[in-house]
Amino acid sequence: MLELNRIGEAARSAAFSLANASTAGKNRALAAIADSLVEHSPAILAANALDVEAGRQAGLSPSMVDRLSLTDARVRAMAEGVRDVMRLPDPVGRVLAGSTLDCGLQMEKIAVPLGVVGIIYEARPNVTSDAAAICLKSGNACVLRGGKEALNSNVEIARAMRAALISSGFDENCISLIEDPSREVAAAFMRLNRYIDCLIPRGGAGLIRSVVENATVPVIETGLGNCHVYVDALADFDMARAIVINAKTHRPAVCNACETVLVAKDIAEGFLPGCLEALRDLGVEVRGCPETKRLAPWVTPATDEDYATEYLDYILAVKVVNGLDEAIAHINRYGTGHSEAIVTNGYAQAQAFLQRVDAAAVYVNASTRFTDGGEFGFGAELGISTQKLHARGPMGLAELVTYKYVVEGSGEVRR
Amino acid sequence: MLELNRIGEAARSAAFSLANASTAGKNRALAAIADSLVEHSPAILAANALDVEAGRQAGLSPSMVDRLSLTDARVRAMAEGVRDVMRLPDPVGRVLAGSTLDCGLQMEKIAVPLGVVGIIYEARPNVTSDAAAICLKSGNACVLRGGKEALNSNVEIARAMRAALISSGFDENCISLIEDPSREVAAAFMRLNRYIDCLIPRGGAGLIRSVVENATVPVIETGLGNCHVYVDALADFDMARAIVINAKTHRPAVCNACETVLVAKDIAEGFLPGCLEALRDLGVEVRGCPETKRLAPWVTPATDEDYATEYLDYILAVKVVNGLDEAIAHINRYGTGHSEAIVTNGYAQAQAFLQRVDAAAVYVNASTRFTDGGEFGFGAELGISTQKLHARGPMGLAELVTYKYVVEGSGEVRR
Repeated sequence: MLELNRIGEAARSAAFSLANASTAGKNRALAAIADSLVEHSPAILAANALDVEAGRQAGLSPSMVDRLSLTDARVRAMAEGVRDVMRLPDPVGRVLAGSTLDCGLQMEKIAVPLGVVGIIYEARPNVTSDAAAICLKSGNACVLRGGKEALNSNVEIARAMRAALISSGFDENCISLIEDPSREVAAAFMRLNRYIDCLIPRGGAGLIRSVVENATVPVIETGLGNCHVYVDALADFDMARAIVINAKTHRPAVCNACETVLVAKDIAEGFLPGCLEALRDLGVEVRGCPETKRLAPWVTPATDEDYATEYLDYILAVKVVNGLDEAIAHINRYGTGHSEAIVTNGYAQAQAFLQRVDAAAVYVNASTRFTDGGEFGFGAELGISTQKLHARGPMGLAELVTYKYVVEGSGEVRR
Repeated sequence: MLELNRIGEAARSAAFSLANASTAGKNRALAAIADSLVEHSPAILAANALDVEAGRQAGLSPSMVDRLSLTDARVRAMAEGVRDVMRLPDPVGRVLAGSTLDCGLQMEKIAVPLGVVGIIYEARPNVTSDAAAICLKSGNACVLRGGKEALNSNVEIARAMRAALISSGFDENCISLIEDPSREVAAAFMRLNRYIDCLIPRGGAGLIRSVVENATVPVIETGLGNCHVYVDALADFDMARAIVINAKTHRPAVCNACETVLVAKDIAEGFLPGCLEALRDLGVEVRGCPETKRLAPWVTPATDEDYATEYLDYILAVKVVNGLDEAIAHINRYGTGHSEAIVTNGYAQAQAFLQRVDAAAVYVNASTRFTDGGEFGFGAELGISTQKLHARGPMGLAELVTYKYVVEGSGEVRR
């Protein structure tokens, strides 16, 4: 815990100087970090080989081992990711509003960094450089706590980045890594309010729940996506089928993938059997309500649990609903507030869905897969926020700042 | 706990309909609430008399009893406060940004209510109507949990407001009051993530610490103000004295009052003795560092604890510092991120202070007392946020909304 406090204090101190760094200076540091990652590639790959071997012996699943594994090309991609962040506009220092107050004071509301951002994540070592680059560009010091499976890799990645900070004249504590993998240290990290301004968990539902339950530092929940596509009675069948297939199968393991399809009962018979067979042919397991099963007897029966589950896999829950009202009620009950879509040619239906569904992104006639910092034109992101405070949807650079009111006077006092 | 869950579920349901209420409709409800408070004045005052009597018997301090006490004029002022909120612009529905994405989708970022706002406060019954009005205007259902000392008053105030909601065609559960004063219910309320989107504590340091420690619902910390005035070596003495006196004595019990004055050592001898005597003549107890004591031997010695204390009283800590750097370091160490002022005629000094001090509001040559929703032109507020996520500084109507991305297409899928 002494070490954790030392890291926090050093990060806080680094954040104070980083907050006023110039855009050019931060970009120089990011370029140096990208170069340093490539330079240190041999050490990073050697450390990663240890992690991968340990992971295999510990029985990690092949997909986990794949996410953990680095190659020369993947390290170069990490460096390129850092350069992409370098090219994005600096969110710090923008004047967001301003006015002359009644008393004569001049007030400006100015974007400033959050300070120190804590990030808790799992076994993907590329998050280490992605998150650090986004924090640095937005003027925030970061304290990283990755999964223990990737610890050796993360230590080398952090070492490469810190060396680049020093060589470009920055405090190396702008980027820190917690090397102690114990739960006790993770728990203390979540309660380090004195030094950490904001905590962002990146990972599965279990990690996020644990952070929300245990943190006293303000948290931004990200990435839980139980997303729906509702096929309305006024839908174009070809469009609906294309959107359902894209939302489910384009990349099933990501948070904006569709997990449940809701279908209006008036068109279920005409739409569902063909659509579900197409999904089956793409390798999707379908779990359906009784009415779905009546129309496509080969599907597995769905339970209430299915509707609450983010599969992140080639599995889809399907439910026939009476119409728009039941669809909206189902989504607002089971959804995680991520991305929700309606397919319809009805104007009133589209408007009602957009207004009444409570989610970060609501779509008419488009795949849920578009909820993404890159697709939205924001560039790199730290995740998709599914909470309502501070940031909702893609957490890019613009979401990693707060503001301060700067007020200038000539001796004004309150009467 | 069953009752708490029932309140939460009813509030969530009310929030869904309130989110799309028209501005005119919400204003009608607010007018009805104001009228209803005046109409129910006899019942409210009778209930308040019970609270005041019980408070006196329980030994509440005179200032606590004063804050708890309602009169006919105070109830009318509560109603007028509701009408003030009615006249403010509606923050819901504003289009905050928008663009056509590369793939052709039309995207808009639209301000929407947070949903259900929980407010935990102490023994001031006027907070019950203030908070409810601000939440209603911003489209949020609210669940209120006031101090047990004001419970009878709050029950009658809530009853008056809920009657007005019904008579103006709104769901009465747009405004709910938790009537069970037990700690267990308060603790469960702080963890009611399923129904509450955001929790705002209003009160002293102990209440806020307890909420931050125990809540899993996202919290906005408000109102902790250990504010400083730094009198720089280049200050105008008359201006500095007027600002220090105003910031300390204009209303010492509020969060934007000054608690510590820092003085540059080069001018301490010329400035401090006269300024401190003026404060003493106004009834302020001064606690000073050794150098302050050398210049004004009558002051009480200050401890480290004094610099960390928000007195909210006629007490002021004073410290002589070497100059700007030490002043900024002191403020960033002991401050609560509320309001901080420098008095100086030095341009570089002013700029450095504005850039390097980490607080919601930073001032040059003005009193810290201006950090206030009304003074900033925002109208009524729920408090001054001293955290960095979501809202910083005055939490007015504009800070009680989040946003959603509305995306409209014609069959777009992700490639």
